[in-house]
Amino acid sequence: MRTGPAFLFDLDGTLVDSVYQHVLAWREALEQSGIELAVWRIHRRIGMSGGLFVNALLREIGRAVTSDDVTHIQRLHAEAYARLATGSPASWCARVAGAPLATGCALGRRNKWTSGNSAPGLDLLGLGPQASVITRDEVQYAKPDPDLFLAAASRLGMPIDEAVVVGDSIWDPLAARRARALGVGLLSGGYGQDELERAGAYRVYQDPADLLRHLDEVGVRTGG
Amino acid sequence: MRTGPAFLFDLDGTLVDSVYQHVLAWREALEQSGIELAVWRIHRRIGMSGGLFVNALLREIGRAVTSDDVTHIQRLHAEAYARLATGSPASWCARVAGAPLATGCALGRRNKWTSGNSAPGLDLLGLGPQASVITRDEVQYAKPDPDLFLAAASRLGMPIDEAVVVGDSIWDPLAARRARALGVGLLSGGYGQDELERAGAYRVYQDPADLLRHLDEVGVRTGG
Repeated sequence: MRTGPAFLFDLDGTLVDSVYQHVLAWREALEQSGIELAVWRIHRRIGMSGGLFVNALLREIGRAVTSDDVTHIQRLHAEAYARLATGSPASWCARVAGAPLATGCALGRRNKWTSGNSAPGLDLLGLGPQASVITRDEVQYAKPDPDLFLAAASRLGMPIDEAVVVGDSIWDPLAARRARALGVGLLSGGYGQDELERAGAYRVYQDPADLLRHLDEVGVRTGG
Repeated sequence: MRTGPAFLFDLDGTLVDSVYQHVLAWREALEQSGIELAVWRIHRRIGMSGGLFVNALLREIGRAVTSDDVTHIQRLHAEAYARLATGSPASWCARVAGAPLATGCALGRRNKWTSGNSAPGLDLLGLGPQASVITRDEVQYAKPDPDLFLAAASRLGMPIDEAVVVGDSIWDPLAARRARALGVGLLSGGYGQDELERAGAYRVYQDPADLLRHLDEVGVRTGG
């Protein structure tokens, strides 16, 4: 029986309701480094590789940056995030203290697959032992490069063009395109539907539960 | 000489970079009241009246609410916001510790007009003594009702249909429409350009500085 595509899920912001905590943690890290930047500008960069992210923001304010600067700001962000991301995990949006920048996973009855750097964080998601994870350190480049999703498909032993990449930022559909997978967007990252669609998302849903209610729209045969 | 319209500026999120701190403060207040809600859903309600805001969120999760509940949650929010909104004020985006929900103001060489509940917050904005303020308690209904903008125009002694209302959330263009003013959106609240345009914004700019560089686009004659 043909069941349709498997899903490669981004973690932070998509399975974990963490985007806004990351935004304020980056703002705090940048401010401690003497960099004033409007918070919405930080928000719109969330979800890309941490190194690219810092470079992109510093370029925006016309400031040169060393790799030591980037490392220092990333450390400040991790400290601030660990402090801001408190509280109990909730449904799809478990908050994972200390969770890293997001990557890709497959979830559902067919293939469970997620990613992140921190095993304790993943436990909170309740994905169970069958969940499989690609972490940032397993690939050379994070999003918007396609490496994380390619590695996820490879571990599943499936062709990437049969996968659906699910993410909450505009960097996910971009990485999906570059990987030649179908991209689906979720509103949980605080982007507008139009922004996600313009970045290449084939469909946009509110959250994973909303996606699961509309699986037929993305090519999954359910219920016979 | 005809100089064109005056501007009625929303404060929180438009002149003050405070939206994301408000979002996390509301999340914390709701969680302390036993209400789990995805953070992006909170974000998309920011900028409307605090009472409407709580009602709208509670309706979304299907829970009845008393006016005592609303008052209690608003108090928790104020406490959390005062803690989260720290740091030094920056250019247009001074962070105002303890600043209240946003309202309307006019700013610029012609008419300076702002609004908010807290005088200390307004000092931080550097608007100067000529700035004039409409506060929440001066009108019966906050946004998306038009009352704040109507009161602002009235105090300026100008017809509302010659005013440009500048705001960062979809509730500002809605209130502008109802007041029969022209609405302009700013991206500083974290909405996408398309969301603001669909809500009725005639133009969308990045922030107040970007608006000031394009005044001719909204009917202001500059430089002769």
